Amino acid sequence: MAVGLSNELPALHPVAGIRLGTAAAGIRYTGRDDLVLVEMDEQTRTAAVFTRNAFCAAPVIVARRHLTRATPRYLLINAGNANAGTGEQGLEDALATCRLVAEQRHCELEQVLPFSTGVISESLPLDRFHGGIVQAAASLDAGSWPAAAHAIMTTDTVPKAASRQVAMAGGTVTITGVAKGSGMICPNMATMLAYIATDAALAPQVLDHCLREAVAASFNSITVDGDTSTNDACVLMATGRSTVPAIETADSEASRQFVAELSALCQTLAQAIVRDGEGATKFITIEVSQGRSREECRQVAYTVAHSPLVKTAFFASDPNWGRILAAVGRAGIEDLDVAGVSLFLDDVCIAEGGALAATYTEARGKEVMQREEITIQIHLGRGSSRAAIWTCDLSHDYVRINAEYRT
Amino acid sequence: MAVGLSNELPALHPVAGIRLGTAAAGIRYTGRDDLVLVEMDEQTRTAAVFTRNAFCAAPVIVARRHLTRATPRYLLINAGNANAGTGEQGLEDALATCRLVAEQRHCELEQVLPFSTGVISESLPLDRFHGGIVQAAASLDAGSWPAAAHAIMTTDTVPKAASRQVAMAGGTVTITGVAKGSGMICPNMATMLAYIATDAALAPQVLDHCLREAVAASFNSITVDGDTSTNDACVLMATGRSTVPAIETADSEASRQFVAELSALCQTLAQAIVRDGEGATKFITIEVSQGRSREECRQVAYTVAHSPLVKTAFFASDPNWGRILAAVGRAGIEDLDVAGVSLFLDDVCIAEGGALAATYTEARGKEVMQREEITIQIHLGRGSSRAAIWTCDLSHDYVRINAEYRT
Repeated sequence: MAVGLSNELPALHPVAGIRLGTAAAGIRYTGRDDLVLVEMDEQTRTAAVFTRNAFCAAPVIVARRHLTRATPRYLLINAGNANAGTGEQGLEDALATCRLVAEQRHCELEQVLPFSTGVISESLPLDRFHGGIVQAAASLDAGSWPAAAHAIMTTDTVPKAASRQVAMAGGTVTITGVAKGSGMICPNMATMLAYIATDAALAPQVLDHCLREAVAASFNSITVDGDTSTNDACVLMATGRSTVPAIETADSEASRQFVAELSALCQTLAQAIVRDGEGATKFITIEVSQGRSREECRQVAYTVAHSPLVKTAFFASDPNWGRILAAVGRAGIEDLDVAGVSLFLDDVCIAEGGALAATYTEARGKEVMQREEITIQIHLGRGSSRAAIWTCDLSHDYVRINAEYRT
Repeated sequence: MAVGLSNELPALHPVAGIRLGTAAAGIRYTGRDDLVLVEMDEQTRTAAVFTRNAFCAAPVIVARRHLTRATPRYLLINAGNANAGTGEQGLEDALATCRLVAEQRHCELEQVLPFSTGVISESLPLDRFHGGIVQAAASLDAGSWPAAAHAIMTTDTVPKAASRQVAMAGGTVTITGVAKGSGMICPNMATMLAYIATDAALAPQVLDHCLREAVAASFNSITVDGDTSTNDACVLMATGRSTVPAIETADSEASRQFVAELSALCQTLAQAIVRDGEGATKFITIEVSQGRSREECRQVAYTVAHSPLVKTAFFASDPNWGRILAAVGRAGIEDLDVAGVSLFLDDVCIAEGGALAATYTEARGKEVMQREEITIQIHLGRGSSRAAIWTCDLSHDYVRINAEYRT
């Protein structure tokens, strides 16, 4: 179902200093892996960003706290149960899973970061974790990225991973990452988890800077349904095992190169989440330009992306462009002069000056709407800022999937 | 399909000074009326509120302008074509329809207010209006409110009207109104039109005050899909033919009584729009209380109401309350302490302190979710403000209706 994606993963380069193990712990699913253990060697530096949802899940609270107190050695990720909306018990359960890892792997409790994704408001089945962690630890291997990509899936229909090797001054740097997510996807993270490792050596403030820059242009620029999850997280691990000299400052050329590469990799992962959006049949890029600020461009883009009327029109391949203009018009942009607004679908100019373009024909509109991947370009005609986000259509299957998810 | 509504209209009291005529003009539909002419006698005072969408339709621009320049004598309303996104030509067409009324009824062009609802971005079929207006004028009658309620429908499945007679000091006041709308419904009006008449005598500033108060608590407190239309309008006509003395100031007891009655009538009409929401199978009231401001309560209520995940859970009768809390958590309320938040579905306490209530059972949750009408109560635990809005669920039929509307 995923637009323009296949079940086949690209080649995923191992990252020196990182080993991954998976297990079929039976947390919710049967007959598939649902637990991942990621092991980082001692010199690895880790940064992470989390959901901004006030109702963040127990593992998010614990992971955030552990990250400020110790140098992480292990990530423990489970699929099928989000351990969210579970109150005090949820916090204790998340800590208990960290303790199991710490005992088995002989590290500090606070060196383990827990992550959960799946159904909200059910207790974590702790009894399944002990055996699961033993199994995952036994399979720890630098080549297990594909297995990890599969094990973190929930409603995803395809695994999501990307990898690249980059020539930099002094050698080659590897970046490899996996992600999951297909619903409850909105800016400020989503029900999405992403784990990215690199063998680059990054000073702590560079690590943080690179992660934030890359996330802003990728995971924080997508939406499926406007719902921000309670469990989102994106983790960047830098092992420093590459021969490339350490990047010490955020404004260096090496840092800029690394940010560009990391951003490209994160965009591939983020777009894969949208392409696999629940029920998605179309992959839509929304580019808003000529705005007074990047913020107002994003506001317009998200208003269009969240309009159920726009989304169903794309599902129907119906060039009902009035719905797009209506969404632009209600986006809350102060003093918007509609006479300055123009609208394109790919290369077809639909509207100029708030009305139908002279060159537009219904036949051209229908042709472009048939495409599986479409770019909406909106020129606001009032400035020089721009923003791009990615979304998908709203189909019968979205309703079916979300009406039936628990039953 | 409409939740708790039938095709049968209540008794609609005529309003002295108002006559209505309808016609089957064939603007888009065949075999049904699609044009309404409303005639007000000379002493009638009229107020109106319109969509805040920057891309407002041509008739909105014309009606707004005419209202500032003359005392309206006629409303001309057509269904099937919104005359929106039609540029300069649309403005000329809207004026041309007013001119047809002015010529036939011997009034000034600016004494006619035009209203259109239906498909966006198609030209108004002007040739159909001449005969339609002749036919509508020939049928002008004080008793034609039911016919008008039917003639303004588009995707509505039932006509919407309400009427009440109120004993006030000095006599009886009648208020009667009709409305249409079922999709593209959001605060700040919607694809909704509402025409309300009263024989009360209201000073101009009282008229305006009463309309704004009533609309805030009704038409601006509903949402079906978050989309604000380009054509929304709500008109209040006061003929002053009642024996009740004129209401001269907004802070009088009579004004308060009238606002209460008008608000109740507008709520009935507004709720009818939600009950008839495209594909709706559930009517949902969202009450948010204990907020720091009414604005933040509305913000939480609308975030919940617009969440596709919440809406599909209601469609599925699935007590997936985690989705409601997740929506509350991402509503952007500053410093929200989740430990203060509690959640009820009707009389069932679902969550307290950000976690499952001790008394909650899945069986109780399932039972309440089966109901056709459900109230979500959210206590924020941080203040004394409150707000209520009304919405519906998101069903397969919503996608079907909006994917197929033009085809």
